[in-house]
Amino acid sequence: MTHFTPHQLAFLQTQRVGRLATATSASAPHVIPVCYACDGASLYIALDAKPKRVAPERLRRIRNILENPRVALVIDRYSDDWSQLAYLLIQGTAALVQPDAAEHSRAVILLRQRYVQYLAMPIEQQPVIAIRPATVVEWPNPDSGKPASSAGAL
Amino acid sequence: MTHFTPHQLAFLQTQRVGRLATATSASAPHVIPVCYACDGASLYIALDAKPKRVAPERLRRIRNILENPRVALVIDRYSDDWSQLAYLLIQGTAALVQPDAAEHSRAVILLRQRYVQYLAMPIEQQPVIAIRPATVVEWPNPDSGKPASSAGAL
Repeated sequence: MTHFTPHQLAFLQTQRVGRLATATSASAPHVIPVCYACDGASLYIALDAKPKRVAPERLRRIRNILENPRVALVIDRYSDDWSQLAYLLIQGTAALVQPDAAEHSRAVILLRQRYVQYLAMPIEQQPVIAIRPATVVEWPNPDSGKPASSAGAL
Repeated sequence: MTHFTPHQLAFLQTQRVGRLATATSASAPHVIPVCYACDGASLYIALDAKPKRVAPERLRRIRNILENPRVALVIDRYSDDWSQLAYLLIQGTAALVQPDAAEHSRAVILLRQRYVQYLAMPIEQQPVIAIRPATVVEWPNPDSGKPASSAGAL
């Protein structure tokens, strides 16, 4: 598992939403906005607590993860001032962590610290998605010594 | 090719950035923020005009599209007021449109109408990515008659 730099962790904490890409084993990609929390190594995403209200296509991310655990998560900052554009692209694997695991309790606490909305939702009763990063790409490259100056990544 | 509803087109015009997911033929997903324009049927994404400055991983989206044209594009609105969350998930195929095509000229005009930044960038000299939607999922479902009331999709 890779580790985040302090700069990357600060960026992860500042942003409020990421976009999670999964793919079927037949290489059909899927992508959805996700709220997330990070413990410094893994990232956690809560599941909807009301599965009976969830249409099948809204669970596509789960079906994909069970079929093919490879995922990509991008967390970015958009601005019409393109010198302010930034993103972290995290690629790795995803697993479902069940409510009886100690890691699950920690994840729920982290999610509720970031999103007070989750205090009123029984997310502790559902598995959480854990993302184990294998690679992290940061753009603009913090080692390049240059600020972002074009929409290169966009 | 699918068609967008007026409500979906208005949402596409209002938002400024989407996230494009691609996958290798071996089902490894990738996702990146993208600026886009829509002509009512296809969506267009410009390529960086300075390929010599582009690190290989920043062209992953192109390598994936050439290898596997299936893509997913999510365009969403995040708010800490979760009753305001919304997204469009577009799944379809992507193609590279070369600068000598009439469609390319139209795409460049549309991109520059939405992003004045592109007026100063020679995007007309590079191919553009054209996304041909096959399916569009709108959340919250406009036919459900209910406002978004939970973070169901997040």
